[in-house]
Amino acid sequence: MVNGQHCRTVSLEGIELTLINQPRLPHRFERVVTRSHEETAEAISTMVVRGAGAIGAAGAAGMAQAALQAPEDGFEAYIRQATALLQNTRPTAQNLFYGIDRVRTAIAAEHTLVAKREAAVASACFVADEDAACCEQIGIHGADLIQDNAQIATHCNAGWLAFVDWGSALSPIYAANRQGKRVHVWVDETRPRSQGSRLTAWELQEEGIDCSIIADNCLGSLMRSGKVDLVVTGADRVAANGDVANKIGTYSVAVLAREHGIPFYVAAPTTTIDHACPTGESIPIEERAEEEVSYTWGWSDRGEFIRVRTAAPGVRCFNPAFDITPAALISGLITEKGIIAPDLEAIRTLRPT
Amino acid sequence: MVNGQHCRTVSLEGIELTLINQPRLPHRFERVVTRSHEETAEAISTMVVRGAGAIGAAGAAGMAQAALQAPEDGFEAYIRQATALLQNTRPTAQNLFYGIDRVRTAIAAEHTLVAKREAAVASACFVADEDAACCEQIGIHGADLIQDNAQIATHCNAGWLAFVDWGSALSPIYAANRQGKRVHVWVDETRPRSQGSRLTAWELQEEGIDCSIIADNCLGSLMRSGKVDLVVTGADRVAANGDVANKIGTYSVAVLAREHGIPFYVAAPTTTIDHACPTGESIPIEERAEEEVSYTWGWSDRGEFIRVRTAAPGVRCFNPAFDITPAALISGLITEKGIIAPDLEAIRTLRPT
Repeated sequence: MVNGQHCRTVSLEGIELTLINQPRLPHRFERVVTRSHEETAEAISTMVVRGAGAIGAAGAAGMAQAALQAPEDGFEAYIRQATALLQNTRPTAQNLFYGIDRVRTAIAAEHTLVAKREAAVASACFVADEDAACCEQIGIHGADLIQDNAQIATHCNAGWLAFVDWGSALSPIYAANRQGKRVHVWVDETRPRSQGSRLTAWELQEEGIDCSIIADNCLGSLMRSGKVDLVVTGADRVAANGDVANKIGTYSVAVLAREHGIPFYVAAPTTTIDHACPTGESIPIEERAEEEVSYTWGWSDRGEFIRVRTAAPGVRCFNPAFDITPAALISGLITEKGIIAPDLEAIRTLRPT
Repeated sequence: MVNGQHCRTVSLEGIELTLINQPRLPHRFERVVTRSHEETAEAISTMVVRGAGAIGAAGAAGMAQAALQAPEDGFEAYIRQATALLQNTRPTAQNLFYGIDRVRTAIAAEHTLVAKREAAVASACFVADEDAACCEQIGIHGADLIQDNAQIATHCNAGWLAFVDWGSALSPIYAANRQGKRVHVWVDETRPRSQGSRLTAWELQEEGIDCSIIADNCLGSLMRSGKVDLVVTGADRVAANGDVANKIGTYSVAVLAREHGIPFYVAAPTTTIDHACPTGESIPIEERAEEEVSYTWGWSDRGEFIRVRTAAPGVRCFNPAFDITPAALISGLITEKGIIAPDLEAIRTLRPT
């Protein structure tokens, strides 16, 4: 919700793809339009659009743009190159590959230029609609886990901004709120890119849900003092055995939750499951620029969006964007098909046929 | 070490107390001079000077300043008020109370104005010298825990900047380095005030010790991948049973260390032990301004020291500065008298007689 209105993060009209400029949030709500798959690839890799479902839909839309751009002569080669470009924007999130593959398959199934283009656009729109519908269902299933007056912790942003609509981890909170349950959310800042304090806090505020931002260092002691009843995070990729890749720090939160006997759930549409990936060890972990750690971006008191250096100049930073949470630490996966155990058998039943 | 020279954080000459302006580090190395106990109290509460031993020595020096400022008529009342002002600057760090009490006792033991003033200055200098000497001994004892090629993690800054010289958690690393052992240090950024990425990283760099800054979220997954052999942190207060108050996030690091079978040591001079405090539950935890979480301070690309807002405006932040790590998670306390078990019996032997 933005100013009480539903709003989608990714929407394709003709060759124009409209995105929300997420690094500027919450200080400016700006839309960005890309007009080619190259511009879309750039928007994904620079994290103008970020979040599992949102980059899945953006990747699919980029493929549709490529189909609209591609010349009749050399169409296949053009699509192959566009596929590679879009796939190489971010390595970890499964939905990106899902969205791209879905459109590529739709293109390949047709035989004329016009039909290929129409199929590409229809498929990209399907990916976006499917994402929004799955997230809404995740909310309905996940709300059952939330008691009235629950204190819920989350890490990073897995709200509507990270998907096309509704979100994964935040969708159950939105559903519970609409059911009249009162909740309080502890929002991890989520350094280095502060998706929690910027995006999750903003989303919750727009929905009128009570929340407090905390430094990532704070959650352990809050758990120890009995102030956390439930943890819900999103996922960038779920392996076939239930291991989960998600924003760096998720693993630590999961260990802390188990230490304190607090249920730790991962919410994700089944499109986030990589059935070809046996365990978390096989998931590639993106390492991002050192500057994300040595600097912080934000709004100055003069109203400029700038960066400040906090770290000692000349000292190396190590900046993996994700970590792996083993299935053993996860209480359950909240999917659009219900809440399932994070194990091989349960996950196999969700494999597309 | 600054540019290869030893440097003390706190030094009193006459009524002038020279401090290092720590919020400006590492981008500017500036000295600040306070000329009254009121200015010193302000420097402590605004964290111009911070860190267990450094604020202990600064508190002691503030008492000496008060003795020099106090009129002969009403001397006792003046000292009482100064004591209260200095004690109320920060609630958690034990060394602050130790330093203040030490000087107050020295003043009370004398009977003439001149003698009281001389005793106050001598006592403040003793507190500073004792702190430096204890930290040097901590290094010698703690270096035994460090193997060649060790990967060591630390949280916040418990280096020489946090004491008068040498530091607590970093002193063993400095000693090991001088013994020719190669080490690599993982430096937690330590939000919200970034003492790790600003101060610890800078100290290690000045000593020529290999290190990498990480977001606080990263340490758990580094431990899981076997890249951490040892954790050493400082302490702001040690209770009689071995529970430790230290920078927010220390508790989470300790839980993660135990989960991965990694030794977790706390380094502190015995002046940090509060024998009157039975357990960590009795240690008051300072809650600091929300702005520390919603903003980040640093140097802009224009070379200005400014703040940027990251957090969504209007959302509440919760900002406890410390947490409690229970003794059961601590492998040992590295003190100037040797490495001891974090339990009632071992700690009782360190009680001053």
